[in-house]
Amino acid sequence: MSPKALDYESLNENVKKVQYAVRGELYLRASELEKEGKKIIFTNVGNPHALGQKPLSFPRQVVALCQAPFLLDDPNVGLIFPADAIAKAKHYLSLTSGGLGAYSDSRGLPGVRKEVAEFIGRRDGYPSDPELIFLTDGASKGVMQILNTIIRGEGDGILVPVPQYPLYSATISLFGGSLVPYYLEETANWGLDINNLRESVAHARSKGITVSIAHAFCLNNKITNLDIFWNSEAVRAMVIINPGNPTGQCLSVANLREILRFCYQENLVLLGDEVYQQNIYQDERPFISARKVMYDMGPPLSNELELVSFHTVSKGYWGECGQRGGYFEMTNIPPKTVDEIYKVASISLSPTVPGQIFVGLMVNPLKPGDISYDQFIRESKGILESLRKRARIMTDGFNSCRNVVCNFTEGAMYSFPQIRLPPKAIEAARRLGKVPDVFYCLKLLEATGISTVPGSGFGQKEGVFHLRTTILPAEEEMPAIMASFKKFNDEFMEQYEDHRGYSRM
Amino acid sequence: MSPKALDYESLNENVKKVQYAVRGELYLRASELEKEGKKIIFTNVGNPHALGQKPLSFPRQVVALCQAPFLLDDPNVGLIFPADAIAKAKHYLSLTSGGLGAYSDSRGLPGVRKEVAEFIGRRDGYPSDPELIFLTDGASKGVMQILNTIIRGEGDGILVPVPQYPLYSATISLFGGSLVPYYLEETANWGLDINNLRESVAHARSKGITVSIAHAFCLNNKITNLDIFWNSEAVRAMVIINPGNPTGQCLSVANLREILRFCYQENLVLLGDEVYQQNIYQDERPFISARKVMYDMGPPLSNELELVSFHTVSKGYWGECGQRGGYFEMTNIPPKTVDEIYKVASISLSPTVPGQIFVGLMVNPLKPGDISYDQFIRESKGILESLRKRARIMTDGFNSCRNVVCNFTEGAMYSFPQIRLPPKAIEAARRLGKVPDVFYCLKLLEATGISTVPGSGFGQKEGVFHLRTTILPAEEEMPAIMASFKKFNDEFMEQYEDHRGYSRM
Repeated sequence: MSPKALDYESLNENVKKVQYAVRGELYLRASELEKEGKKIIFTNVGNPHALGQKPLSFPRQVVALCQAPFLLDDPNVGLIFPADAIAKAKHYLSLTSGGLGAYSDSRGLPGVRKEVAEFIGRRDGYPSDPELIFLTDGASKGVMQILNTIIRGEGDGILVPVPQYPLYSATISLFGGSLVPYYLEETANWGLDINNLRESVAHARSKGITVSIAHAFCLNNKITNLDIFWNSEAVRAMVIINPGNPTGQCLSVANLREILRFCYQENLVLLGDEVYQQNIYQDERPFISARKVMYDMGPPLSNELELVSFHTVSKGYWGECGQRGGYFEMTNIPPKTVDEIYKVASISLSPTVPGQIFVGLMVNPLKPGDISYDQFIRESKGILESLRKRARIMTDGFNSCRNVVCNFTEGAMYSFPQIRLPPKAIEAARRLGKVPDVFYCLKLLEATGISTVPGSGFGQKEGVFHLRTTILPAEEEMPAIMASFKKFNDEFMEQYEDHRGYSRM
Repeated sequence: MSPKALDYESLNENVKKVQYAVRGELYLRASELEKEGKKIIFTNVGNPHALGQKPLSFPRQVVALCQAPFLLDDPNVGLIFPADAIAKAKHYLSLTSGGLGAYSDSRGLPGVRKEVAEFIGRRDGYPSDPELIFLTDGASKGVMQILNTIIRGEGDGILVPVPQYPLYSATISLFGGSLVPYYLEETANWGLDINNLRESVAHARSKGITVSIAHAFCLNNKITNLDIFWNSEAVRAMVIINPGNPTGQCLSVANLREILRFCYQENLVLLGDEVYQQNIYQDERPFISARKVMYDMGPPLSNELELVSFHTVSKGYWGECGQRGGYFEMTNIPPKTVDEIYKVASISLSPTVPGQIFVGLMVNPLKPGDISYDQFIRESKGILESLRKRARIMTDGFNSCRNVVCNFTEGAMYSFPQIRLPPKAIEAARRLGKVPDVFYCLKLLEATGISTVPGSGFGQKEGVFHLRTTILPAEEEMPAIMASFKKFNDEFMEQYEDHRGYSRM
């Protein structure tokens, strides 16, 4: 009998090609160890509440009241909820037609989309249109929907920064497109060197070669030769992640202008993953949106460049990952395309309504004078200041380790140290059939319980190794974690370095 | 300059092919009219809370407390929350690692999946394995994920009941597969006649023709010739919707046995859309799951048939559509395939955690003796009994109308009357370039504010016309709505019938 449709050998090949390292081999092994009773520090995914970050009180009060609207008529409600939370809950309930239990419009509640538009207008200094804002179940779902709209087949390439967040490689594989990498420059604090990008383009064009690379990229976790992947006809869009994941850099205005000009000249849609826009840990380069820079540059670019920007309640000082709130905003996208995106969003009916309320609360926060304002500021500042300290502790910690170098985390939630693995370690890994950084990270996990993601899951230059960790473990636990890391690392290096001229057992 | 990636002409063609009638032309026109101030009765989508159904109190209390866990330490909490809601909130928080704000495992919280497994075990009399249950953002997302796993290209056909819920046609188009229709028999209360299905298969096989029909089906909203669509090699899966959407029938055990045997013999995966399992309005045919019937049939079928079953908190007496809670359970799916499905689920990180809690509350409800039990039973019974009455009022109302015949809604939330359009009405529609039932439904909308979905959005036999309405308008409003419908319909028929031998202006 021929295989059935859900037998492994007959599944959609694109599904099989997907690799998703953030919850890959390391995560699975960590879950096993946890079941066996080992204490695991999950730094594999940016999941702040799982590591003890407390939710902001005010938004939770509002959403709790929206969930239980009958409380609004309870004479005792004022004993446990502040008046501004009660007022805000009434406001959001008035934006729904049937409360949190009713499907909203598939683009999200019109009233919340209006609040998002006002937020974007204030942030950028240019008004935004609610009709071009779609609320989503977290930013990832929005990215997936836009890529599904763009990708027609493996001839369609998407420029993605390497190291990259595996959402992109996985989604591009799933929809059968091709990932076209561009390298971030580690020695320039993970900046994007547009001249290198242009040179690669010119060089590749002169060769005129079209090769689908998603397969090679995803199966081998490495890219051996950028040149052969580029074909200007095939490339349809470019992704930027600002602040960077996993690399933590904040793009400068100058860099953003170069990127926008490049996309305009090359006729590329720009996808701006800006989910970490509130996570900034230095003062030299504040977050600035691709949209603002684009409008500042003026026409024709500002009228023509197709831009989709993404944001979420999962990051920032909110960290409300489990609520699945997010949005994307479309700029210069033709109305017929917006209609198509709306139609496809309709298939799954409605994003989560509680998640939409969180989006509203994020973009339309408390103002000075509101009863809960001081508490809100205290809580949110506390989180951001602590993250800034943790970014510093972590970078310094990594840089104190043998054969480890690490750029400072300017923004986002991750540290991405380079691990200079000695040849003997690489050899030992290969003997076990492991990618060398996977080998290192597994040993780290077994020795210390620290669950990281190997750099190969994000892409890296041939022969260079990294790991990604979040900066999210509690501030007070951070010194111990870094000490534990250092002890493991330095012993590992001791074991595998052979410059001492003797070998160990 | 060549078109940009998000210009309409260069979008993914599969996206453009998607049709989704539930939120199609009628819905858009209704939304416009509403903006202009007209009172619209939205019966286009099964969205109970939007039409005034009150949420069940207990689950909302529990989830409100989970959203605001700091209330659990508030000495006044007992004044507005019952003790069992407090205990239940603590229970669910204990199943998370970081509360509602933390991503869960991409399959959902293990503790909730365990509760789902226990529910399925009690319901069917056969134990269920939590590792084979994945929580999802509503059932639709689960259906989409499974279809994405199955469909490799347009050579892959999915058998879908016609009339069908457009989630299936839309998703199959989006992923580039082919919808293969099988007809439900209106004269047999929308039953599935397995002999007809077998005859079609045999007949088609003898011709040996493979034709992709998704395109024809979706663009024309009709199927002209079943024979040419069938090819046994190409068909990979069969969908059943039980109770039926839009048709409202409950499948008998005998019918389910035939379907299961058919899938087994034809090597098809069975997708059991059982989201209306709590919505039953007669006593002769209670809901019975495909899984239970399959296990009752015993080996080899029960060991080999690949089955995926779907459920949700959006329907039943819950109607918690906006919360986006659902699950699917896999039976006889090989472990390597389960791993692949897990991997793809990981890309979007986590289903909504509040939605997961609702799933837990649905499958593990209050028990006699619990403080809130009586209220819960009163509320849920009230909703179901009222739905049963409304199903009856609606069916009788339609059957009292000229040229309208309607099967009783045995289950689910819809009425699907056949509208026998006079030739002159069909002609008038064609002159306007409209499908005849769209023409009728638009006129109904303009005249009465009742927003329905034309039968062509679900597929129907050539020359036969229907509309779908939910049975969800408030019970007290139902007589007026049906009177308003009858007035419109009978005038419409009066206008377009020409048996009187004279024509009107």
